[in-house]
Amino acid sequence: MDSSSLQQVISILNKHQRFTIGCHLRPDGDAIGSLLALGLSLELGGKQVEMVLPEGEPQTYNFLPGFERIRSKPTFEPEVVISVDCAEQTRLILPPEVFTTKPLFVNIDHHISNTYFGDVNLVLPEAAATGEIIYKIICAGGFPLDDRIALALYTAVSTDTGFFRFSNTTAETLSLAAKLVETYGISPSQIAERVYEEKSFESLRLLTEVLSTLQLSEDRRYSWMILTQEMLQRYPVELEETENFVNYASSIRGVEIGLFFKEVQPQDIKVSWRSKATVDVSRLAAHFGGGGHARAAGCSLTGPMEAVTKEVLSFVQQYFEEKEKAKAVKDVFV
Amino acid sequence: MDSSSLQQVISILNKHQRFTIGCHLRPDGDAIGSLLALGLSLELGGKQVEMVLPEGEPQTYNFLPGFERIRSKPTFEPEVVISVDCAEQTRLILPPEVFTTKPLFVNIDHHISNTYFGDVNLVLPEAAATGEIIYKIICAGGFPLDDRIALALYTAVSTDTGFFRFSNTTAETLSLAAKLVETYGISPSQIAERVYEEKSFESLRLLTEVLSTLQLSEDRRYSWMILTQEMLQRYPVELEETENFVNYASSIRGVEIGLFFKEVQPQDIKVSWRSKATVDVSRLAAHFGGGGHARAAGCSLTGPMEAVTKEVLSFVQQYFEEKEKAKAVKDVFV
Repeated sequence: MDSSSLQQVISILNKHQRFTIGCHLRPDGDAIGSLLALGLSLELGGKQVEMVLPEGEPQTYNFLPGFERIRSKPTFEPEVVISVDCAEQTRLILPPEVFTTKPLFVNIDHHISNTYFGDVNLVLPEAAATGEIIYKIICAGGFPLDDRIALALYTAVSTDTGFFRFSNTTAETLSLAAKLVETYGISPSQIAERVYEEKSFESLRLLTEVLSTLQLSEDRRYSWMILTQEMLQRYPVELEETENFVNYASSIRGVEIGLFFKEVQPQDIKVSWRSKATVDVSRLAAHFGGGGHARAAGCSLTGPMEAVTKEVLSFVQQYFEEKEKAKAVKDVFV
Repeated sequence: MDSSSLQQVISILNKHQRFTIGCHLRPDGDAIGSLLALGLSLELGGKQVEMVLPEGEPQTYNFLPGFERIRSKPTFEPEVVISVDCAEQTRLILPPEVFTTKPLFVNIDHHISNTYFGDVNLVLPEAAATGEIIYKIICAGGFPLDDRIALALYTAVSTDTGFFRFSNTTAETLSLAAKLVETYGISPSQIAERVYEEKSFESLRLLTEVLSTLQLSEDRRYSWMILTQEMLQRYPVELEETENFVNYASSIRGVEIGLFFKEVQPQDIKVSWRSKATVDVSRLAAHFGGGGHARAAGCSLTGPMEAVTKEVLSFVQQYFEEKEKAKAVKDVFV
């Protein structure tokens, strides 16, 4: 744990008065939760804070108290700009004008791929969620924590660990969750309901269509599904509602890689990769210019669906064949 | 908390030597996890223990260490028979012959509907899972706890709370989970993978069929899906693989009740009920001779699918209409 960066961040938060906070594009529960938790805590401590989320960005987490304090545009000149849960500056949601007066730039994140783009970087890849880091800052710095902040933190941590099911879940994560429930009366089921039980009827119709395209490779080691523009036109749902569809492909017994091909625009195909413990899909997605985590990655390809699936699937097939060969060679030499 | 029953159970476990343990029919993660945790702990403590799970019962949790110690038939005469996670004696998996020598009968459970059928009953409805009660017994009684037992307990608690998403999840549940991860190196993601990521390809095909039957009531307050014998013949999967299908119906935004009609045998229709915070479905299922919890209940009806869905759905429609009327009356008098 990088305690010198932690202390640096704490002293910056103590010393300065005017903060602008942003997170990554298409923010998820950890991004919004961390944004709110840090922003509300600083506000409670008497600081001037602007939390920014431009119009058109997903509003999935607008049930969180304090969400109404988030502005669609920055309006003042901050002394400090803080980026939370954002691995690269290009994905930061804040417009360039917040940097006009050359504020101090603080980067708080848990992605191992973080590019350390800030003046001060508190990057802790061992944290399950950026929310865990915000909690550390609040505790170590003695910043205020109330029910709203606790709810934001619980949302950050629970969503980024797939409700304590992903491999980033640690004893510390569960312990933090227990503490927030115990002390601030957070209701785990209410958060889960808000996050999971708010599907649109149309998104379930779309899921049915997508599931009907599910295919399994001959060796049953990988499986895939597709989503076409034509389907999206029939069931016009927010693309974020399809984020978890890929998990169906990887949930099959014996399957090591699950793939989901989404035609987000005509001929613009986003590929989501999921894997179980055996394969690092971030390396496979990198072959197509993408990236991510070992168990969840993504990449984009241009072309008609048929050509793209063919290209990616042959690459995956080849990967497994080479893996088998390497294994056979190793077995001979053992 | 019923501390006298807890002390009674502890002294029985200490005093006696020969135990037979069973759980409810079609055991879930909490039943199997509790069975194993208690059985292995007693064995480690030098007791003679038979854990029993008849052939033909689901083997979903056979990945748990110690599972191989479970017998398909009881072979000895116990001094004590213990039922775990079983609300009624009729659902207990043990054959009548274990009671031949009139053993002491201990009933350990967390279902509020438990009928107190034992000689000694440790029934704690506030526990999220029976696994939580077993943990209490182990701690308070100073019984052994090792990695295998910890894994069984984590499985019990995590599966019965829907991986910490259901309303029975408390700070204590999360705290216990944290402790098991911290002290015994349990991997939350490995358990989740074993439980959730081991679907058969056929069960996903069946899910696709079932989802294509999803319908929403005109007032969008309830939704339902059906599973016919014809579908099951096309995709012959274990019925337990369809247990969670009902959650799709209740996951729709605004929907208060989700229903799933399963033709488990020709003309034998099992209805699963799920609700959000607004409706107690155990009361509605009770109208058809069923029962369960406020958020999850079940009942069985005989007849062709069409007649059964019609009967149940008109009842639900009527329920909502009366609720509206009562609300209108209340509004007038306020």
